[in-house]
Amino acid sequence: MTAAELERLLADVAQGALTPEAAVQRLRRFPVDDLAYAQVDHLRPLTQGFPEVVLAIGKTPDQVLGVCHSLAESYGSFLVTRADGDTREALQDRFPKVELNDLGRTAYLPPDPPRAATGRGTVLVVTAGTSDLPVAEEAAVAACALGNRVGRLTDVGVAGIHRVLRQADELFRASVVIVVAGMDGALASVVGGMVRVPVVAVPTSVGYGASFGGLAALLAMLNSCASGVVVVNIDNGFGAAAAASRINHLP
Amino acid sequence: MTAAELERLLADVAQGALTPEAAVQRLRRFPVDDLAYAQVDHLRPLTQGFPEVVLAIGKTPDQVLGVCHSLAESYGSFLVTRADGDTREALQDRFPKVELNDLGRTAYLPPDPPRAATGRGTVLVVTAGTSDLPVAEEAAVAACALGNRVGRLTDVGVAGIHRVLRQADELFRASVVIVVAGMDGALASVVGGMVRVPVVAVPTSVGYGASFGGLAALLAMLNSCASGVVVVNIDNGFGAAAAASRINHLP
Amino acid sequence: MTAAELERLLADVAQGALTPEAAVQRLRRFPVDDLAYAQVDHLRPLTQGFPEVVLAIGKTPDQVLGVCHSLAESYGSFLVTRADGDTREALQDRFPKVELNDLGRTAYLPPDPPRAATGRGTVLVVTAGTSDLPVAEEAAVAACALGNRVGRLTDVGVAGIHRVLRQADELFRASVVIVVAGMDGALASVVGGMVRVPVVAVPTSVGYGASFGGLAALLAMLNSCASGVVVVNIDNGFGAAAAASRINHLP
Amino acid sequence: MTAAELERLLADVAQGALTPEAAVQRLRRFPVDDLAYAQVDHLRPLTQGFPEVVLAIGKTPDQVLGVCHSLAESYGSFLVTRADGDTREALQDRFPKVELNDLGRTAYLPPDPPRAATGRGTVLVVTAGTSDLPVAEEAAVAACALGNRVGRLTDVGVAGIHRVLRQADELFRASVVIVVAGMDGALASVVGGMVRVPVVAVPTSVGYGASFGGLAALLAMLNSCASGVVVVNIDNGFGAAAAASRINHLP
Amino acid sequence: MTAAELERLLADVAQGALTPEAAVQRLRRFPVDDLAYAQVDHLRPLTQGFPEVVLAIGKTPDQVLGVCHSLAESYGSFLVTRADGDTREALQDRFPKVELNDLGRTAYLPPDPPRAATGRGTVLVVTAGTSDLPVAEEAAVAACALGNRVGRLTDVGVAGIHRVLRQADELFRASVVIVVAGMDGALASVVGGMVRVPVVAVPTSVGYGASFGGLAALLAMLNSCASGVVVVNIDNGFGAAAAASRINHLP
Amino acid sequence: MTAAELERLLADVAQGALTPEAAVQRLRRFPVDDLAYAQVDHLRPLTQGFPEVVLAIGKTPDQVLGVCHSLAESYGSFLVTRADGDTREALQDRFPKVELNDLGRTAYLPPDPPRAATGRGTVLVVTAGTSDLPVAEEAAVAACALGNRVGRLTDVGVAGIHRVLRQADELFRASVVIVVAGMDGALASVVGGMVRVPVVAVPTSVGYGASFGGLAALLAMLNSCASGVVVVNIDNGFGAAAAASRINHLP
Amino acid sequence: MTAAELERLLADVAQGALTPEAAVQRLRRFPVDDLAYAQVDHLRPLTQGFPEVVLAIGKTPDQVLGVCHSLAESYGSFLVTRADGDTREALQDRFPKVELNDLGRTAYLPPDPPRAATGRGTVLVVTAGTSDLPVAEEAAVAACALGNRVGRLTDVGVAGIHRVLRQADELFRASVVIVVAGMDGALASVVGGMVRVPVVAVPTSVGYGASFGGLAALLAMLNSCASGVVVVNIDNGFGAAAAASRINHLP
Amino acid sequence: MTAAELERLLADVAQGALTPEAAVQRLRRFPVDDLAYAQVDHLRPLTQGFPEVVLAIGKTPDQVLGVCHSLAESYGSFLVTRADGDTREALQDRFPKVELNDLGRTAYLPPDPPRAATGRGTVLVVTAGTSDLPVAEEAAVAACALGNRVGRLTDVGVAGIHRVLRQADELFRASVVIVVAGMDGALASVVGGMVRVPVVAVPTSVGYGASFGGLAALLAMLNSCASGVVVVNIDNGFGAAAAASRINHLP
Repeated sequence: MTAAELERLLADVAQGALTPEAAVQRLRRFPVDDLAYAQVDHLRPLTQGFPEVVLAIGKTPDQVLGVCHSLAESYGSFLVTRADGDTREALQDRFPKVELNDLGRTAYLPPDPPRAATGRGTVLVVTAGTSDLPVAEEAAVAACALGNRVGRLTDVGVAGIHRVLRQADELFRASVVIVVAGMDGALASVVGGMVRVPVVAVPTSVGYGASFGGLAALLAMLNSCASGVVVVNIDNGFGAAAAASRINHLP
Repeated sequence: MTAAELERLLADVAQGALTPEAAVQRLRRFPVDDLAYAQVDHLRPLTQGFPEVVLAIGKTPDQVLGVCHSLAESYGSFLVTRADGDTREALQDRFPKVELNDLGRTAYLPPDPPRAATGRGTVLVVTAGTSDLPVAEEAAVAACALGNRVGRLTDVGVAGIHRVLRQADELFRASVVIVVAGMDGALASVVGGMVRVPVVAVPTSVGYGASFGGLAALLAMLNSCASGVVVVNIDNGFGAAAAASRINHLP
Repeated sequence: MTAAELERLLADVAQGALTPEAAVQRLRRFPVDDLAYAQVDHLRPLTQGFPEVVLAIGKTPDQVLGVCHSLAESYGSFLVTRADGDTREALQDRFPKVELNDLGRTAYLPPDPPRAATGRGTVLVVTAGTSDLPVAEEAAVAACALGNRVGRLTDVGVAGIHRVLRQADELFRASVVIVVAGMDGALASVVGGMVRVPVVAVPTSVGYGASFGGLAALLAMLNSCASGVVVVNIDNGFGAAAAASRINHLP
Repeated sequence: MTAAELERLLADVAQGALTPEAAVQRLRRFPVDDLAYAQVDHLRPLTQGFPEVVLAIGKTPDQVLGVCHSLAESYGSFLVTRADGDTREALQDRFPKVELNDLGRTAYLPPDPPRAATGRGTVLVVTAGTSDLPVAEEAAVAACALGNRVGRLTDVGVAGIHRVLRQADELFRASVVIVVAGMDGALASVVGGMVRVPVVAVPTSVGYGASFGGLAALLAMLNSCASGVVVVNIDNGFGAAAAASRINHLP
Repeated sequence: MTAAELERLLADVAQGALTPEAAVQRLRRFPVDDLAYAQVDHLRPLTQGFPEVVLAIGKTPDQVLGVCHSLAESYGSFLVTRADGDTREALQDRFPKVELNDLGRTAYLPPDPPRAATGRGTVLVVTAGTSDLPVAEEAAVAACALGNRVGRLTDVGVAGIHRVLRQADELFRASVVIVVAGMDGALASVVGGMVRVPVVAVPTSVGYGASFGGLAALLAMLNSCASGVVVVNIDNGFGAAAAASRINHLP
Repeated sequence: MTAAELERLLADVAQGALTPEAAVQRLRRFPVDDLAYAQVDHLRPLTQGFPEVVLAIGKTPDQVLGVCHSLAESYGSFLVTRADGDTREALQDRFPKVELNDLGRTAYLPPDPPRAATGRGTVLVVTAGTSDLPVAEEAAVAACALGNRVGRLTDVGVAGIHRVLRQADELFRASVVIVVAGMDGALASVVGGMVRVPVVAVPTSVGYGASFGGLAALLAMLNSCASGVVVVNIDNGFGAAAAASRINHLP
Repeated sequence: MTAAELERLLADVAQGALTPEAAVQRLRRFPVDDLAYAQVDHLRPLTQGFPEVVLAIGKTPDQVLGVCHSLAESYGSFLVTRADGDTREALQDRFPKVELNDLGRTAYLPPDPPRAATGRGTVLVVTAGTSDLPVAEEAAVAACALGNRVGRLTDVGVAGIHRVLRQADELFRASVVIVVAGMDGALASVVGGMVRVPVVAVPTSVGYGASFGGLAALLAMLNSCASGVVVVNIDNGFGAAAAASRINHLP
Repeated sequence: MTAAELERLLADVAQGALTPEAAVQRLRRFPVDDLAYAQVDHLRPLTQGFPEVVLAIGKTPDQVLGVCHSLAESYGSFLVTRADGDTREALQDRFPKVELNDLGRTAYLPPDPPRAATGRGTVLVVTAGTSDLPVAEEAAVAACALGNRVGRLTDVGVAGIHRVLRQADELFRASVVIVVAGMDGALASVVGGMVRVPVVAVPTSVGYGASFGGLAALLAMLNSCASGVVVVNIDNGFGAAAAASRINHLP
């Protein structure tokens, strides 16, 4: 229930268009829906601007289904990230209209009818290499679901610096740039030095040996010589999308 | 030389208001001013929207003075961060109008006449404890220098959660929130869950023992359970300000 | 054999109610029962107030069965933690009355007849998210087995701070609070700041990337800005329960 | 202002013994006293059972003095930890009755008249070696200030195991044991295996080389083979005292 | 070929008991036997007192077989450590007299006829818990193979300190003590403080969470408060045996 | 397309030997071939002297096939590293002439006709132990593919120092030496002290316990007491070959 | 009081040569001498074969003096390690016959008359470089004080491998070898591969950058490819000496 | 004594131009000059191509002087790195012709007459920022001393990518490129992707917070996405120069 919906509901009650009983029924899950194994937070749209997004890691498919059911009933939509094959299948069985992204491991039930993008500009997702695509897809799907127009620029890492330089125009057109890179994470600094808009860097666990599961890229990005590059957790495509959406929805 | 200034200069040449010789003289430092020990990057205003900011760590006072001289000549203004006592003194001797912030270790030469804030809203700098103030001051001074209105909320860490809850209105009024916290870094997650706008988290090295110089707060912030909190380097007040300014100047 | 039982046995011998031979037979396993691969410590009830609890990690099912047999003979009860599927199955085959908790990976043979809780108040197990439940269940089952009344509060992480704030009364009623949280571990600090009673924080390995297997939550909890929060090992639900039970049984 | 004091104040107002104006004056600092650089949290006695304790690290002597002034006015008492020489001197100048502990780096202004210990039993502070004394003293002073009877057992590390074994009676008489140890931190496990009462382990940075500033002892204590040993931050004597006091004041 | 054997061979040649051709044939593998994927070092008995021991990690079963063949031909004996199931099976097929220890993952082909122990006293292998047995077995088998008498003391960790104290006599009879312990590694310090003879500490990866694969025990042992405890790599039972054997064979 | 080929193509156009249309067709993939999931960098031969090499980690077999197709069309050759079984099989199905190295996990399609080595001398790949062979093979295959003559020296670790000393002549004949070693990485320092030519050290993840996945060897090599030893990432055989080839092709 | 001395004392009492009162006086400090800040362990000679050695780190000069006084009264001798300038001076003032080693930071009061070495052979202290000398001197002084003959081999690191190879005879004559090395720690492996006797490796903090205070050498030594090399803490010269002395005094 | 000099000396002896006695006198320091605290390695010119270079860290000024004396007598030249103020002064007093570089902390006694550069091309030292200059100067001075022509490119970090792009020609002219960079270390990858020649990356400790003393740059460089970039220790300017010189002197 978004803030606008809540206002409308209360106005309806005030105008007699909705009986208090019916309103209570609709507010039943407010502010939390207690599922024993989860407290689905229905205050989230008010505090954050969008409903809870479900991180499937460490949850059983049944638990994910339960939370999604609560969200679908209230909002007609949900987004699940890090959903493994079993969970994605269970969601598709239960919600036939869910959109699965196997590379990005997401499951998204779009609202019906679809909503237009509400963000002010484009969120551009830039990846250093082909192996970074799963994280980039998670970011792109999530940014869409959160109401943003999304662009993509793939495999433009600095080993062949001309690949990103020749795409400068596309970079200049974006409102927010998400840079997804593993290994040395150097692309974040190069992009950060090329554009004026906010740059959200996502280190990935792509690499081996002394990448230590993405630590190398994480540290490099935190120490970026380009001013004002911000960083999210390793492989956290969703987090980058949420940050970009906060920025892109700035009033 | 900002993009606007460059356009004006070229227009003046086109209209005969400026001789090519005079234009060359003014462009002499473009795109870089080669000082032997530094290549002052005068393309920066075009790419980043503001001139180079001088990080004094690892530079001698003379080197800092030299770079500041180049910047002052071109822009009538500069900002130095992490300036120790000697460097601040040397700057004050040479540039009497420089504004020193001893707590934040900054030296800022404001343009004359001063410029109005150009950002769309307020950047709010929130600190968890008194010991985080040096980093918070660096952020606040830098955000001002980069053209933003700045607010402050001090010592509202989660050990007494009511301190931040009762300031919710101030949080809701901000366009961007910078959260500065050491130790457990928990304030970033609490604030991130309260507001919709972008939250830039700055871990500080405040603490001891297993804080490992701010690592504890850094990791906690990177793993924030609040979606879309972004992080900069430990103690990097300037970086947070630069990110907030990028966001606050979104077209 | 608890201290009380030992006293009674010796009194029985003194009063002729028990022959020395019978007493020796019952003391046969005292102070240790030598199983070749294990020295079951039957002095533990005297020193610690409860018999050895079996950590199944690194032990074969047969070794676990052997230790449980020794404990069941002496105390009519045992508790196994971190029992994988094979071990739980083997225990159920051999001890049909054993109570399995698949989520918490515990196997508990309750005494017959059951014993009333001996602790002075309630141990409240609070979890930040659904994914923390396996660790929380281990803590809850163990706290029960150690003679404590147990309450649960699930999925009240700080991303939606209202979820824990609205449960303040339940927190205030507890004698000891166990906070189970992964990712940023921030819930421990918030709860620690809300209550006066002891707070035992359990970092979990829930998370990914820079959570580094629970290190982020561990460090955050060790650096809690709330005074007097204490910490146990990552995912150590049993350890938290043992600590809470020590506290709750304070004479 | 403690909960009892607050109740008494409100009762006085109800009975006309105190004018509302006078009550407001006394409540002026409630819930926080805003000192610009600090929000002294006067709700703390209600939530935690004791006023804020001042951690001097990262604060200027003037800031410490300011906070202490606010606390002394409200409670006639304060405790400062990690106060360096300058800060201790400044406090003694301003508050001649303050009690300094140079080894433990504390400054304590006791209430006048002194208060009797309110905890139920004795908090025993056990140290492995002479070099651990600064941390142990911080713990002992803080435990006293928080209303506990305090005992001490010094230099009983496990290299000469007989030293702690022969003190078993003293260990058995304690309500809570604080074990302060650097290097291998093994004393916590040995004591944890000897007593039934809560054991709070404090790793210290005593050692060199691969102690990595106390990391070795911290990890050893977190992995204690004795069930239910809990741990606080490296060198965090105050935190151990606060935890012990929470335990010792269990209703 | 041991030094003694080499001397005898040369003496035989000198005395005409062996033709130079036959000697060359027997020396063919001296100093190395080049197997393309391995240079079996037949100088090792001279430099180290015993032939190469085969670490199976990272080698294919065929590579292990090849090296063992070279060793068996020269010495009639070999020892393989860290042999997985496939490798142990392959060895048993090829060398029916090989002795497998499944817990310790060793394969040992004893010389025929067997050799008496050559070390001066007993190597005592002490384990803290049942889960440490695989490492302890590797140590015990290797110490035997290297010519030492071996004793065992199992599951005497410090959580029940009486278990090790009551075995003091056994400890006092040993020439070298190998202490195998995971988790907090505290047993090494306690044993180190009880005996005068050399103590070789083997940290194991037994534990979870902040044991970080044995790092906790390793650091604790390196920082042992007992003087003169020495340490080998995590889980390195063979290394401990080799060290103990060097000590026990001191001329 | 190498620089020489590009020059020839342009000369052909200039001389009318090639129509502009045909030239465009051949330049179609220049500078990048956009495959949606990859931007194959056809400028690489100009900047680096050899075409892109495909790192298969994190790529699906289809993605690897696609990139290889683009490379094979342009250069009649490609090299894939870290190709797992499925990927190697898929490549062999599609490119029957590809040469697979199962130990080194490489797939190499040699040009037809084969090219002579272009480097000035021999790249010698030296391994400390049998378990280091997979990394050494990756290095050897890659060095060959990049146009170098390659020699091998296997299992000459410093535990039997005579094994490497007796091969000194082979070391002295090399132009570049690649030292592949896990565990203590000591062989790099010994070789570095024996030869004058460049030594590229490759730490491997061979080992266990405190090798921490090759960290021990990496740090040892970075701290080599032999001057001028350079280091690449853990297990990075290809990187070492690329470096050696840069050196061996010095004009 | 050594075991032999204790036996003699008791025999004297039995034979009337010593009154019980006099015996009590001499046993007054047995088993510990309680100095408030220290429990000097006078059981140590019985358990360890030598009196407590005083580690001065973290102790005030007065505390060190107090412990030394207690030791000097009982044994006529003491050894202090890691004594800074002030402590060494204070010791020399109070005990004019104390022998100071400024490089090794030791203070040793030799017994009068001096005692002959009691160990069976020579302890050889080998250093990789000049910068390792302080640690090596600590080891050498301590080994002497503990009753061993000591030899030295200085600056024979593997960068010039011939330096250690040409000293092979000296290595072969030793009973125990202590290898002191920083940076890559490679010398321990080379020496370990050359000799049969026990090798105790001491990593030092000599180095910079990625030596991380000796971590690189520590890890290298723990992963030594030479079997049976044992390791002590970084810079722990005394620990190595204590271990070597345990070995050299093997009955 | 270089190899050429040794050959000449032996030829002189063979031809009677030098008496054996005189030859012995000149060979007196061969292969090592034993200074008690150091074994100056005079075989180094034969094995490495240049005499020992003195690392002053951890050596007293007297020790440095002693080694330099030995080197000056044999070669008429020496190079000291990491010489602090006292050591540089002591060297200047003793060797008036020594050339000091205060920024790079080097002291170099050039041969008289000077020697021409012997390397085949130019070693180009590229720095990311002004703060990296001390390390870059150490590299430049050392490369010169080792017989190479040296170029410099200063302050061309990727935050303003145009600064390095516009210097491409200078990069293309170099034989070896040394890239000196702290913070994110990204410059190494960008340069590595631009040139074909060997690139030696030197991470510096420039930065703060999560740079962890240069670890961030080190890891980034080890994970460089540009093939064949090699890495030396943090701040190891000399090591980079030695590597570059090995490369530049390839026969």
